Amino acid sequence: MSKLPEKTIGRLSEYRRTLLNCLANGKTHVFSHDLANLHNITAVQVRRDIMLIGYSTTLKKGYDVKALIDVIGNIIDTKDGLNAAIIGIGNLGRAITAYFNGKRTRLKIAATFDTDPEKTNRVISGVKCYPISEMGRIIKEQDISIGILTVPPEDAAAVTETLIMAGIKGILNYTSTSLNVSPNVYLEEYDMITSLEKVAYFVKEKNE
Amino acid sequence: MSKLPEKTIGRLSEYRRTLLNCLANGKTHVFSHDLANLHNITAVQVRRDIMLIGYSTTLKKGYDVKALIDVIGNIIDTKDGLNAAIIGIGNLGRAITAYFNGKRTRLKIAATFDTDPEKTNRVISGVKCYPISEMGRIIKEQDISIGILTVPPEDAAAVTETLIMAGIKGILNYTSTSLNVSPNVYLEEYDMITSLEKVAYFVKEKNE
Repeated sequence: MSKLPEKTIGRLSEYRRTLLNCLANGKTHVFSHDLANLHNITAVQVRRDIMLIGYSTTLKKGYDVKALIDVIGNIIDTKDGLNAAIIGIGNLGRAITAYFNGKRTRLKIAATFDTDPEKTNRVISGVKCYPISEMGRIIKEQDISIGILTVPPEDAAAVTETLIMAGIKGILNYTSTSLNVSPNVYLEEYDMITSLEKVAYFVKEKNE
Repeated sequence: MSKLPEKTIGRLSEYRRTLLNCLANGKTHVFSHDLANLHNITAVQVRRDIMLIGYSTTLKKGYDVKALIDVIGNIIDTKDGLNAAIIGIGNLGRAITAYFNGKRTRLKIAATFDTDPEKTNRVISGVKCYPISEMGRIIKEQDISIGILTVPPEDAAAVTETLIMAGIKGILNYTSTSLNVSPNVYLEEYDMITSLEKVAYFVKEKNE
């Protein structure tokens, strides 16, 4: 299968999250318009995405929840699992570590890094924290391919350089600094300010 | 001006973040293709967004950084400021409180809420934490219009109901539970799993 667009991958991941909730609530089938409502998109979009990954349904009953979870998993999960590392184990780093571990078996937070000697060489939220100075070695030894950045914004660029030198292939940037990476590294950025500003704009519009 | 699309608002907020960085680095002008590169979009998209908000430039020097920051601020900021509250003051709640306060003067985390008696009636990350049972009263008293949800996923639906009853107009949901709200409440959801799964997919694609 050829590479799917970024936005499709994002939506497939979100559908799976919803489907797992459906399954937990005992639902065995779901219609495209139900998925569409839950994700604030059109049913046409849902059907197009799911057709793209080669799954179809008899329209009467809707999609088989379990089967669709598996099909999405075959597309977006890795066969052998991937290891990620968190760089900067402050409140956000801890929150992410606790949030991820145990949720998906194929993605694992394998190590965390920090400069604070009070944090390094300890187990924090279930994961060993190493000094940033050892990042290159640990990333190679533990076959870590994804770096999650939760360092102070002023450190983001330098840490990214070290990550890429160590062979990291994907970066999830939670700092407020936009990064520039070479095209062979996949970069995903998230800034909380942007989300809050969007909410604030629409709240303001409703009030006016 | 008519209501702008959600995605445009998101991008304007991101442009402003970049422009503020430019300003801090002493840059006075910036070209659309520079902004485009930094945000992994096309220059045409950047110019279209900025034309939409009624700003133009002499092509030779690019956009005036300071002026464009002001124009974007006039669109997306509220005149009188908006108050937000964080519900669930665990690691993520603390990270967000610390991150926001002091960054934008017109958006303020005015209160936090939790059920844990060890946290309530104390100041955490600079903001007073109240018991969730007092949420309705405090939200009205402090004119809070945005709720940021960082509670455990199983509590998300019940807390949302209380928020809406208390008159909240916008919700930023960081739990792994998708919410359903009435059309007069603006909902923005963010799930870290989706971001990490996107990175993992593209890392896997690069390796194959």
